[in-house]
Amino acid sequence: MAEQILDRIKQVVGPNGWLEQASDIEPYEIETRGLYRGKTALVVRPRSTEEVAAVVRLCAEAGLSIVPQGGNTGLCGGGVPSGDGRNIVLALGRMNKVRAIDPANFTITGEAGVVLADIQRIAAENDRLFPLSLGAEGSCQIGGNLSTNAGGVQVLRYGNTRELTLGLEVVLADGRIWNGLRTLRKDNTGYDLKQLFVGAEGTLGIITAATLRLFPKPRETVTALLALPDFDAVMQLFAEARAVTGDQLTAFELIERTGLDMALKHVNGITDPLNQPYEIYALVEVSTASPHGDAAAPLEELLEAALEAGTVVDGTIAASAAQRDAFWRIREGIVEGQRFEGGSIKHDIAVPVASVADFLKRAIAAVTERQPGIRPVAFGHCGDGNIHFNLSQPVGADKDAFLARWEEFNNIVHGIVAEFNGTISAEHGVGRLKRDELTHYKAPLELELMARVKKALDPRDIMNPGKVIAEVAFNALKAE
Amino acid sequence: MAEQILDRIKQVVGPNGWLEQASDIEPYEIETRGLYRGKTALVVRPRSTEEVAAVVRLCAEAGLSIVPQGGNTGLCGGGVPSGDGRNIVLALGRMNKVRAIDPANFTITGEAGVVLADIQRIAAENDRLFPLSLGAEGSCQIGGNLSTNAGGVQVLRYGNTRELTLGLEVVLADGRIWNGLRTLRKDNTGYDLKQLFVGAEGTLGIITAATLRLFPKPRETVTALLALPDFDAVMQLFAEARAVTGDQLTAFELIERTGLDMALKHVNGITDPLNQPYEIYALVEVSTASPHGDAAAPLEELLEAALEAGTVVDGTIAASAAQRDAFWRIREGIVEGQRFEGGSIKHDIAVPVASVADFLKRAIAAVTERQPGIRPVAFGHCGDGNIHFNLSQPVGADKDAFLARWEEFNNIVHGIVAEFNGTISAEHGVGRLKRDELTHYKAPLELELMARVKKALDPRDIMNPGKVIAEVAFNALKAE
Repeated sequence: MAEQILDRIKQVVGPNGWLEQASDIEPYEIETRGLYRGKTALVVRPRSTEEVAAVVRLCAEAGLSIVPQGGNTGLCGGGVPSGDGRNIVLALGRMNKVRAIDPANFTITGEAGVVLADIQRIAAENDRLFPLSLGAEGSCQIGGNLSTNAGGVQVLRYGNTRELTLGLEVVLADGRIWNGLRTLRKDNTGYDLKQLFVGAEGTLGIITAATLRLFPKPRETVTALLALPDFDAVMQLFAEARAVTGDQLTAFELIERTGLDMALKHVNGITDPLNQPYEIYALVEVSTASPHGDAAAPLEELLEAALEAGTVVDGTIAASAAQRDAFWRIREGIVEGQRFEGGSIKHDIAVPVASVADFLKRAIAAVTERQPGIRPVAFGHCGDGNIHFNLSQPVGADKDAFLARWEEFNNIVHGIVAEFNGTISAEHGVGRLKRDELTHYKAPLELELMARVKKALDPRDIMNPGKVIAEVAFNALKAE
Repeated sequence: MAEQILDRIKQVVGPNGWLEQASDIEPYEIETRGLYRGKTALVVRPRSTEEVAAVVRLCAEAGLSIVPQGGNTGLCGGGVPSGDGRNIVLALGRMNKVRAIDPANFTITGEAGVVLADIQRIAAENDRLFPLSLGAEGSCQIGGNLSTNAGGVQVLRYGNTRELTLGLEVVLADGRIWNGLRTLRKDNTGYDLKQLFVGAEGTLGIITAATLRLFPKPRETVTALLALPDFDAVMQLFAEARAVTGDQLTAFELIERTGLDMALKHVNGITDPLNQPYEIYALVEVSTASPHGDAAAPLEELLEAALEAGTVVDGTIAASAAQRDAFWRIREGIVEGQRFEGGSIKHDIAVPVASVADFLKRAIAAVTERQPGIRPVAFGHCGDGNIHFNLSQPVGADKDAFLARWEEFNNIVHGIVAEFNGTISAEHGVGRLKRDELTHYKAPLELELMARVKKALDPRDIMNPGKVIAEVAFNALKAE
């Protein structure tokens, strides 16, 4: 990398705006689960949109490629530089101003580096809700949430990050700034350009700020933990819950015994939630923003009717905020508990909601047949058809040998996903992890269309190269 | 137009698949409000996606351009062929099969030519709701709704057509078929390609089928008509209504006296809704899908609290379905009543929700200053910040002379919209009507990005040419 261009970039961002010592840079080079380790000569930390634009302009001139990075909590390696040291990392963390909050308009405008939890907090201080909520919310940044179209636990009611986005400010691949910071609910003046950048994982431009939708703050939230007789009952219960609550569900999460046992064993403060153990649970949450609304009655009614119908065999409604937190600790504790049980091969899949039970039965049978003793840990947002289908190694097996079979089990699980017309990445994105695998599950035409969009907006491939877009698709167009 | 290519197209669609007699063709050449009259040598009416693809392939080979058309109810001339007779019209009306309805998955898949009301009806027969609802629903087709990202009266709760779309099938500009008919709630495997085609008004490809989201069918719908003291009260009431109903509003529509008087005078079956006349009304609707939900109580509470706070001066809650229909007849009667009051210059604008009152005051003052006696008729979806701001001519003025000032008044109103960072087309789209005007309100960079997307997907500009994309922006890229 030419020293000269790096020096000019350093000048743009000033003395506190860059890092190049190996020890300073290291956290920016590592993927959070240890799947990837990249290498970069320079981490730039601009403080303003203008600085981002100036850096990108210099890179565009020099043909130097850029990896935008937020809180670096992504799970697919989308924010990690390549191993050859030929990317610079552009970290947005110093662009962390909330530019405006407008409770009357139900909007907030913040820079890419604002931590998600801060947006939630500022909304709440203004009697509003920003509903995006996920495990990493204390450190992930909204720019990363936007770039990966993050999901989380309240998608059911409020949508993915895409649906929460009203406007964007983006630095394009040539360093020009697109100011699309609209605060409108409706705007049909041509192509909806912001849709291009949401979920593009930084491959089409760098999101520097966004205007997001806010909602009335819930006044009451009621949570139930229900035990179910079998997988078939899960989605029956879901349909009943949508109907009886008047579609006011904010969460409908799957928990099953294997994961719960791991949480019970390894995570402090978790207790078995009902009087006896069950195999399958649904964590069901209803909230209301009305001061006179009643979130408890519909859940009570659901529980009673479902017990009678046999879709639920046992269950309890949280009697206090503490009990509610305890239910959620179980849900969140599954991920943590799994870490202590050796290697885990991950899947983040979605199938049509109506196919969740059939998928689970097929997939559990298939992986167990391939490897007796394997421990499938299925959990997550099944109200969206999205299951985190993780496979813990058999007890006592060799961790490395098990993890070496990552692709083998991906093929089994994703093959079944494909039969249900599902997706191999429901919410985590593509990044490096699934870029090449995607070529097996997406039609060539679809890969080509993605490459065409990429070529239209970043013809020299300097924005996060090697991510999302399969090289084969992009190269085919270069020859045109 | 070469006879030979037209003959080949006719062969593809068979004897009942095309029209060329002037009298048969005429309805396809006329814009519904009479703003445009186009000319075409051939109307093709394919019956399948494969036929659409074959027609497009032939056109692509010959460089013949295509205007896709649904129910031809659009208000911006997007579906009308050019005046030079050089487009063929591809009408989707014979592709009117509902391919699948899946109540358990809350999805319906239908072809582009299915009439919106039929989708609503089939959903209802399956105990589900398809919430898209607008004046033309008895004749508009879902392909047109998708291509214009239609809005309507329930956007507040359920979103625009974009938010209701899970998957699309599209015939691309080269005649290849993209099968993107997903039924998933979450899918982060790369760019969300369907977003490109929704709202593109047929300029990037022809939508031939879609998978749409369904919702639990409301069990109870309660509607109130409330009289307000002034415009400032409108959005105060809106915030109160969001809070007290727990964000369960399905409609929040503005009605004011001038429009109501026109409806009363000219439309049968409309009566003044309250005991005395008021200047400003809000039509507020709440629904619940829960069999035990209560939509009336929150509205009663809202009315009581707002009367006390002074944001409402009078009002009534519909006591029966008949009374509810009567309220909606007023709302829908405004458009009809206006037709009898001479020329009307239309605007379909949106501003940030918090700016609705200020916009209305500014805009009414400005047009009245320019033309004393002008009758502003402001109505519509103000809960989305979307106002249909129509200007009826002064009583007794010359209609043609008034309509000749269309651009003059557009400039005044849209200038004020721009000051509020609003949009000159909230839900009707761009088409031909607003294509050139858009160049004054959108940044050149934004027009360029739109043109880049167009060029990437339809490099030869055969898909609905002359619509949406300003010629100047597209031509600039052709030179590259």
